Amino acid sequence: MHRVRFRDPAGSVRDGHWHDDHVSFAGETYSFDEVDILPPCEPTKIVCIGRNYAEHADEMENEVPDRPLLFLKAPNALASHGGTVPLPAGKERVDWEAELAVVVGAQARNVAEDDAMDYVAGFTCMNDVSNRDDQNREQNWVRGKAFDNSAPLGPVLATPDEVPEDASIELRVNGETKQSSSRDYMMFSVPELIAEITTYLTLEPGDVISTGTPAGVGALSDGDHVEIEVEGVGVLEHDVRAAE
Amino acid sequence: MHRVRFRDPAGSVRDGHWHDDHVSFAGETYSFDEVDILPPCEPTKIVCIGRNYAEHADEMENEVPDRPLLFLKAPNALASHGGTVPLPAGKERVDWEAELAVVVGAQARNVAEDDAMDYVAGFTCMNDVSNRDDQNREQNWVRGKAFDNSAPLGPVLATPDEVPEDASIELRVNGETKQSSSRDYMMFSVPELIAEITTYLTLEPGDVISTGTPAGVGALSDGDHVEIEVEGVGVLEHDVRAAE
Repeated sequence: MHRVRFRDPAGSVRDGHWHDDHVSFAGETYSFDEVDILPPCEPTKIVCIGRNYAEHADEMENEVPDRPLLFLKAPNALASHGGTVPLPAGKERVDWEAELAVVVGAQARNVAEDDAMDYVAGFTCMNDVSNRDDQNREQNWVRGKAFDNSAPLGPVLATPDEVPEDASIELRVNGETKQSSSRDYMMFSVPELIAEITTYLTLEPGDVISTGTPAGVGALSDGDHVEIEVEGVGVLEHDVRAAE
Repeated sequence: MHRVRFRDPAGSVRDGHWHDDHVSFAGETYSFDEVDILPPCEPTKIVCIGRNYAEHADEMENEVPDRPLLFLKAPNALASHGGTVPLPAGKERVDWEAELAVVVGAQARNVAEDDAMDYVAGFTCMNDVSNRDDQNREQNWVRGKAFDNSAPLGPVLATPDEVPEDASIELRVNGETKQSSSRDYMMFSVPELIAEITTYLTLEPGDVISTGTPAGVGALSDGDHVEIEVEGVGVLEHDVRAAE
């Protein structure tokens, strides 16, 4: 069963369950209309991976890295399922990037690949929204990748056994499929990423590793409706609006 | 009066006051030996500035940027006054970088330069410990700058009026002065940095902006004792040990 964090009609934040047509907590059920879906975890950081699919590195005219390309987003980047993401003001191109996101379950440092999945609470969907104007100009992708609401995350936490090794990853904009790939095509696997990251950084429970995007990125526009579907997780949906 | 967070002898975390030879909370006083000094705030992120002193950009053979060079550290990077920082394993060169750090006092987004100081709780000292081996190889300075304990912070929070516009910034290693400069020589001022960062990112209460290091960086070694002194704040001290 998928776990979901939501704000109930009284305003309490609940860690409940996701069903086909409602959510529940402690025997109470709520329609989707009655609640606000929240990101499924409360990360202290989001460790993102760049160029983890060869076809995407190609489309960006980048080389495939010899070790994972890491970058950070902070909690200010989070956005929710069902929310509306404002695009950063005055930018020519802000792109979608559908990703499989890993949610950390236990504090992890110096973890071996073979043990890495013991530290995973589960998986969810993320959009690594990317402001190319600034990403292409700066050393560290802070303006480019870590701006407010650059990480829509959710809607649920699926346990590792629910997400196949070859899970499909798909992104649709206004109903049209733009990205369609599989976890199979990642260059660095989830255990390899956890081993590499925890050589340097401690991961905390609730932290997120976003595992990189496949080919098919493109520019978001005012009014777009984005759906990111990871097999075994479900569909993260959000709207987009131009900055005021 | 300087504020200090500490763990008291019972194990409670207290937001107290710093005196010449003791700390206090709620009428109780404790000697420095009785308590653990903690970082003076609990940031959701540390926004760091690179190359904000022309002489340091020169010594690193880098150009002076035309807008602030930003990078991020997450809370895993924090370390405390009086602590011992383990150097990342297997690296040739890990450097000290003394910095004036700004502690944010109120949630801030799209803040104008003229209003920026309204969002500042105060100042403290930070060591932006830098693993050059990886920093020089990676696009985003995650292994290079955001590893565990790469941000010793403290010991106190000084209010803005206590820290002069031309406050001296000094770093000593084993008693020998290695960096000696002043806030005067920053290329981008604190209000300019806040305006630029909050164009993209929301700053939260307790977040830290570390304003860049002056010239005089150099390599840390096993057993080093580091002191970073910012005029009006005081002295952040920590030890260093090689990785096991």
